Amino acid sequence: MATPKPDTTTLPFSKYPAWTLSKLRPLALQKIQAVHDWVETKCIPAQGIMKAQLAKDRWKMPPLMRQLRAEAKARGLFNLFLPKEFKESPGLTNLEYACCAEIMGRVYWAAQTMNCHAPETGNIELLAKYCNDEQKEKWLYPLLRGEFASAYSMTEPDVASSDATNISISIQRQGDSYVMNGRKLFANAKWNPDVKLYILMGCTDPHNPDPRRRHSMLLIPSDTPGFRMRQNLSIMGYDCAPEGHGEYIYEDVRVPVSNVILGEGRAFEIAQGRLGPGRIHHCMRLIGQGELAYEYALVRATDGRKKPRGKLIGEFDSNIERIAQMRLELDALRLVVFNAADTMDALGNKSGRYGIAQSKILVPVTVARIIDECMQLYGGQGLTQHTPLPEMWTYARFVRVADGPDAAHRHQVGRDQLKTAGDVVARHLRYYEIAQELKKQFGLEEELADDCTWEYIKPKL
Amino acid sequence: MATPKPDTTTLPFSKYPAWTLSKLRPLALQKIQAVHDWVETKCIPAQGIMKAQLAKDRWKMPPLMRQLRAEAKARGLFNLFLPKEFKESPGLTNLEYACCAEIMGRVYWAAQTMNCHAPETGNIELLAKYCNDEQKEKWLYPLLRGEFASAYSMTEPDVASSDATNISISIQRQGDSYVMNGRKLFANAKWNPDVKLYILMGCTDPHNPDPRRRHSMLLIPSDTPGFRMRQNLSIMGYDCAPEGHGEYIYEDVRVPVSNVILGEGRAFEIAQGRLGPGRIHHCMRLIGQGELAYEYALVRATDGRKKPRGKLIGEFDSNIERIAQMRLELDALRLVVFNAADTMDALGNKSGRYGIAQSKILVPVTVARIIDECMQLYGGQGLTQHTPLPEMWTYARFVRVADGPDAAHRHQVGRDQLKTAGDVVARHLRYYEIAQELKKQFGLEEELADDCTWEYIKPKL
Amino acid sequence: MATPKPDTTTLPFSKYPAWTLSKLRPLALQKIQAVHDWVETKCIPAQGIMKAQLAKDRWKMPPLMRQLRAEAKARGLFNLFLPKEFKESPGLTNLEYACCAEIMGRVYWAAQTMNCHAPETGNIELLAKYCNDEQKEKWLYPLLRGEFASAYSMTEPDVASSDATNISISIQRQGDSYVMNGRKLFANAKWNPDVKLYILMGCTDPHNPDPRRRHSMLLIPSDTPGFRMRQNLSIMGYDCAPEGHGEYIYEDVRVPVSNVILGEGRAFEIAQGRLGPGRIHHCMRLIGQGELAYEYALVRATDGRKKPRGKLIGEFDSNIERIAQMRLELDALRLVVFNAADTMDALGNKSGRYGIAQSKILVPVTVARIIDECMQLYGGQGLTQHTPLPEMWTYARFVRVADGPDAAHRHQVGRDQLKTAGDVVARHLRYYEIAQELKKQFGLEEELADDCTWEYIKPKL
Amino acid sequence: MATPKPDTTTLPFSKYPAWTLSKLRPLALQKIQAVHDWVETKCIPAQGIMKAQLAKDRWKMPPLMRQLRAEAKARGLFNLFLPKEFKESPGLTNLEYACCAEIMGRVYWAAQTMNCHAPETGNIELLAKYCNDEQKEKWLYPLLRGEFASAYSMTEPDVASSDATNISISIQRQGDSYVMNGRKLFANAKWNPDVKLYILMGCTDPHNPDPRRRHSMLLIPSDTPGFRMRQNLSIMGYDCAPEGHGEYIYEDVRVPVSNVILGEGRAFEIAQGRLGPGRIHHCMRLIGQGELAYEYALVRATDGRKKPRGKLIGEFDSNIERIAQMRLELDALRLVVFNAADTMDALGNKSGRYGIAQSKILVPVTVARIIDECMQLYGGQGLTQHTPLPEMWTYARFVRVADGPDAAHRHQVGRDQLKTAGDVVARHLRYYEIAQELKKQFGLEEELADDCTWEYIKPKL
Repeated sequence: MATPKPDTTTLPFSKYPAWTLSKLRPLALQKIQAVHDWVETKCIPAQGIMKAQLAKDRWKMPPLMRQLRAEAKARGLFNLFLPKEFKESPGLTNLEYACCAEIMGRVYWAAQTMNCHAPETGNIELLAKYCNDEQKEKWLYPLLRGEFASAYSMTEPDVASSDATNISISIQRQGDSYVMNGRKLFANAKWNPDVKLYILMGCTDPHNPDPRRRHSMLLIPSDTPGFRMRQNLSIMGYDCAPEGHGEYIYEDVRVPVSNVILGEGRAFEIAQGRLGPGRIHHCMRLIGQGELAYEYALVRATDGRKKPRGKLIGEFDSNIERIAQMRLELDALRLVVFNAADTMDALGNKSGRYGIAQSKILVPVTVARIIDECMQLYGGQGLTQHTPLPEMWTYARFVRVADGPDAAHRHQVGRDQLKTAGDVVARHLRYYEIAQELKKQFGLEEELADDCTWEYIKPKL
Repeated sequence: MATPKPDTTTLPFSKYPAWTLSKLRPLALQKIQAVHDWVETKCIPAQGIMKAQLAKDRWKMPPLMRQLRAEAKARGLFNLFLPKEFKESPGLTNLEYACCAEIMGRVYWAAQTMNCHAPETGNIELLAKYCNDEQKEKWLYPLLRGEFASAYSMTEPDVASSDATNISISIQRQGDSYVMNGRKLFANAKWNPDVKLYILMGCTDPHNPDPRRRHSMLLIPSDTPGFRMRQNLSIMGYDCAPEGHGEYIYEDVRVPVSNVILGEGRAFEIAQGRLGPGRIHHCMRLIGQGELAYEYALVRATDGRKKPRGKLIGEFDSNIERIAQMRLELDALRLVVFNAADTMDALGNKSGRYGIAQSKILVPVTVARIIDECMQLYGGQGLTQHTPLPEMWTYARFVRVADGPDAAHRHQVGRDQLKTAGDVVARHLRYYEIAQELKKQFGLEEELADDCTWEYIKPKL
Repeated sequence: MATPKPDTTTLPFSKYPAWTLSKLRPLALQKIQAVHDWVETKCIPAQGIMKAQLAKDRWKMPPLMRQLRAEAKARGLFNLFLPKEFKESPGLTNLEYACCAEIMGRVYWAAQTMNCHAPETGNIELLAKYCNDEQKEKWLYPLLRGEFASAYSMTEPDVASSDATNISISIQRQGDSYVMNGRKLFANAKWNPDVKLYILMGCTDPHNPDPRRRHSMLLIPSDTPGFRMRQNLSIMGYDCAPEGHGEYIYEDVRVPVSNVILGEGRAFEIAQGRLGPGRIHHCMRLIGQGELAYEYALVRATDGRKKPRGKLIGEFDSNIERIAQMRLELDALRLVVFNAADTMDALGNKSGRYGIAQSKILVPVTVARIIDECMQLYGGQGLTQHTPLPEMWTYARFVRVADGPDAAHRHQVGRDQLKTAGDVVARHLRYYEIAQELKKQFGLEEELADDCTWEYIKPKL
Repeated sequence: MATPKPDTTTLPFSKYPAWTLSKLRPLALQKIQAVHDWVETKCIPAQGIMKAQLAKDRWKMPPLMRQLRAEAKARGLFNLFLPKEFKESPGLTNLEYACCAEIMGRVYWAAQTMNCHAPETGNIELLAKYCNDEQKEKWLYPLLRGEFASAYSMTEPDVASSDATNISISIQRQGDSYVMNGRKLFANAKWNPDVKLYILMGCTDPHNPDPRRRHSMLLIPSDTPGFRMRQNLSIMGYDCAPEGHGEYIYEDVRVPVSNVILGEGRAFEIAQGRLGPGRIHHCMRLIGQGELAYEYALVRATDGRKKPRGKLIGEFDSNIERIAQMRLELDALRLVVFNAADTMDALGNKSGRYGIAQSKILVPVTVARIIDECMQLYGGQGLTQHTPLPEMWTYARFVRVADGPDAAHRHQVGRDQLKTAGDVVARHLRYYEIAQELKKQFGLEEELADDCTWEYIKPKL
């Protein structure tokens, strides 16, 4: 018996632009509906339980998470993120998955119940794309089955690693082994025993004249001797357990050369391919967070117990305007990310690069501001554990620096744009040439002489 | 011989989102290409000529405009804006026309060469939708043929007319006539002899208990006795000639009762239908302005003559970031307006209301800011007639107040949103109920007692 | 032997406006210098130790704090905040103390070493101003000697207590006792055994027709039976131990009637007097935080290890501009708070009300933004415990809601301002009258007729 | 008979900070009061007349201006700006004059009635400081007497002249003459016959190895042959008549070598001294404009005729907040500029440099935004000649680019600040050293090891 087509006039579909809705295939509608039902009934109401379990055993996957993962897997909700081009993929387009990701974002750990969380998503994609069969057998398939967890280790404390050519951890070949020495930040905590694999980017050939051929990526089992976690890094005070963000020391860490991915010196090639869809996922999850924060704002605005100067919070015009502005901006952001996803679907990841950067630059900063305003509507309580808003804000704030700060991405976009200036100038020179003819034709050469009209259209002599 | 399909990898198409491009029919692609060619070759280079002709005779259509209109009409570029549902329409969807409107917006008078300028567009739509055959014969068809110009007269100086229920100009029925007395602002200048018709909104029934049945719309020939233009209103100092913005006095102005549109007391019904697509046009034209301003920024950034401290303006990282930010925001705005247009196409104007408000609130304020930054890159020159940026900024600034200031629209959106709060609260109560069950199931009732967990999910008792 | 006059061309004095510097008396110069030396040598370098001690025993004053307090007291650095008008005061003006407060703010716990921390400062002032001798003996003098700690209990979870007329905790007189029932938020944690006293604002006369006569303030010893701390409230995830922010239940809590301050129904009178200087202290401490954050920005900007794209962070023009903007805004904020302090000195606390509101509204939001930008310059690390910036930001963010959210204060200022509109209108009417005479005199009555010139100067008829 | 001391509890004094008020000497109080009375009764109400006279003869000083100047001179209100150090000065401090300048700023031409307008102020100061006696006799004294007008000619169209080392107009010595060739922008219009003198900065020694010794300043009589005004530059569409902003061509313009100021190659020395106080005047006048705009906002907010949705504009909470925010920011800006002026008084112009930059960067952009918001409160009317707000905004916008755009000043401040980083780093290293000792003392060396605590305090190795 066929599953009935979901009702697209209700949530979550009622929020989608018409053009998006028309592109969602029946399969996708059903998956999105299933994800929605899952998050609404299994995740949002379970936040307290998850917190309580984690409070008892901070660095282990809580039993409820294990149970929910098993159940989600059984329901066919595992690995939805994996793009269609992979044979292991459940078949959603980037746009279809973006819809799922927004819903997952409502609870920060919901994606994990569906094996769709960072850094797993990026890692799985990387392994699926660049590993050989043996490596896949050992690492990719168990990850897809959710049997253990993985980490991605790139950032370093001692250099500006947002410019990856600076990455300095040393990887030296000694016989059949690579030997590593150095420090890393931010990869998921080893304290969590589920984490079995680190994908490490390091420097194998520091003197290669091409700075994009100096680095390699290696598969590092977490129990490799010499590989130590110094401490967990908190993010705005949150320890982010049980995943965490470790600070690591590599001291004569040794793995077989067969652990290199794709080949020595090919880390940039791999990194390039890794980040696109993941940034979209982050951004859609953030929009999900923004939506939930917005709902809390509506709840507070209409809370009959809270009446400063005798009016509901939502009866103050200033707050009415604030709520409208949040709504308008959230919807604009969704259009930006959906478009980026759709561009990847239509034209490939490379063409999607601009849309991804656009999402990465505009979404986190705006969503963080929106959540901040929602907190403000809650007054003092808004900053306490009486609402989840502080954690939500922190996640948005974190994404502003994850994968490089806003400014780095803005610079990249700006530099790309300036390369288009030549064409623009050429076009404007054509305007100028036609204008010169028109002036002659209308006998206005004197009146509209070059030295007293728009400089901008003049050739630069 | 069939016209070849335009190359969609070049301008103007290369700027469109993939989803938009895929919706443009061959007919539309050709029209858009034709509009693009027209504006690039006939309008942008002719700006100086138009200015010079206007300088000589300020309140008349310049000869070049008359000539371009004739030519554009001959090329089939007239009235492209008129929506498909009208039998007089050339057949573009709202989305397809939005593409045209952006291009037209590059030069503020380009739309007029194609009979696609405000207030003509709104007026024509209104007349096409609500007039009887006799009225259409007299006013609509000549307007579509571009034989004269029309004006829309709604704003008043003595009341807050952004809330149209306040409109107070008196219209009294006396026998077979309506007699008007009062003042109006902003309708196009009567000093321009081309303007033959004013569509007036006034008050016929001030004591009707339903404030939305008190007003009527009338057709007022511009030469009606008693109807005087007191002065032209400048906008930020610009007289906006030859269209202008008049300040009017109605003193015992008399028209036959047959000049009422749709019927007495039906002005709100008409006004409702009028504004939607027009706001989209304004917004797309503004994006066109923003794009041109952005091009000037690129031109300046790479102008080899301008090297403060020895670097090109575009070599300063601060400006690289500014240029990126402008680019990203302009593209986000285009997504917003395209989506509003597409929603109207897919679901009708009423469903498009939110998207239209979103465009109206986000586009003008952002484009004005972007143009302002472009001016700033030009230093002192940026504010002078050496660039068209001051006029472009002024247009964007004006649209922030046209059809009511931002805040009025934001309030409307906010009030609509607050009506959804009930559903949100109900949903959150369901989360709470499920959470209660889970607490029982996990034996965490004490630990997660209501009075020490998230207040937000608790029912309001 | 006289202490030498401090060198006012070095820190901390070199930052002060000339007008401020000229108002600092020799006594104050020495105190400020002493506070500066204290914080530079005893507090800033000791932050790690304090953290480590607190990590071991979370809800007790760390031994180092106890030691530093004893030493600061011996050096004459205790209670500097207490205004000159109190006989217990060390004699600094508000302006002079503001200088001290900025320095103390560099480390959030430094004020406590000098018994100048919130809520102690407000509580001490309140007790000094409104208590009778017996109450002073029991509570004020030990507090001044630093023998125990106190808390202020006003905010409630179930009402909008930023509008204090809503405060609802019930205080009923029964014989010689008051009996309290209700809930409170945010007063310092009872878990810290040093906290001996709670100053409670509650409702004694809910039906009094004057809503500002319904409330009373009581002295509540922390070990009073029935007074329970339900949990600690975190602020953006930080527990703020060992002070904390408690969530309290009052269940038939009973104190003798002699514990009322000033008399029943006089809480508003007391509250009025309490908040002024305390807000200034908060704001100056925040400026101190902002200054330190700014120093971290400079440190990062010149860190030779961090060179994205081959340039120091401080060699990017965009960052040069950011650093300048932070510097300019911090200095402007200091002018605002210094002026508020000086106004209180010159004209009394009541006249200072506007300046205090100005500080409260402008400082926290701006300093929070500045710290946020400093974090961003540190990339991912900026959000971790590798810098103290996250805690600093959190403090600034918290002050945005402490004592009522920004918007509440802005509303108050706005309402006060609108009361001045009558005078402004009257002044503008005089302009209009003179203008009428001038028009006559110059024969320009027609040309400058009322209905075509500036509406704004016309009388409203 | 002595003039009575003004009442400092009323306008204009009631707006001043207490510290400022206490520094105003009796002489200054009287001058400020006189300026206030003058502007209130003679300037504000005469704006319509001035406009009408100018409309008739656009490029000549209106008769009313000539009459007001004569009257103001007779009242002793001429040249108040000239700093105390000049023997020709009326004796006000920079702070005292700043008070006058704010008042003058309420009407943009009011300063001119008192011979206190730009560029006269800067020019007079320059001539007084650097000219020899003969030059003074010929140009300075008549200017002080208000007998003619002068212009300052620095900006050029073909280079980035905000970096003055780029100034390229050629000045060649030929015998006893200098011969000039090149183009200039922005100096006051020659079309106004009152303008008799241009102070020109040009390049006498393009190959001098010191780029700050290449330029000279010359006195150019406006009727010098070969010196032509090509057109007037509008500012955001305003012609700014009768002063205007000319675009000039110098073609073999020849003046005697005695027209050089101070000596060849000394233009930078002169320019340095010129700009300080003038920027303060601009900023204070802008604050005056902001204050007047704010008053219009209050007038509109309480206008009984304007009631959207049945409420006064000032009854909307959103507008109450907007009005408060404007008020708070204007007052903060005044503190900034007053402090800059007072710093110059106390420590000299050089020490005032930072405060001047602070004013120049913060004031224009903020005042422009405030005026923009006031316009917005007026809806469509706000942009028309129904209020003076558009011209006021334009003035504020112009000052953002006058004397170089914001960004240029921000860069300068930022670069100066980065020079202080070394001291900051040194201070932080001392913190680190003390911290190391404390760790030893408390036995926390392991726990607080360098590689897991705050990076920021660590020496860079």
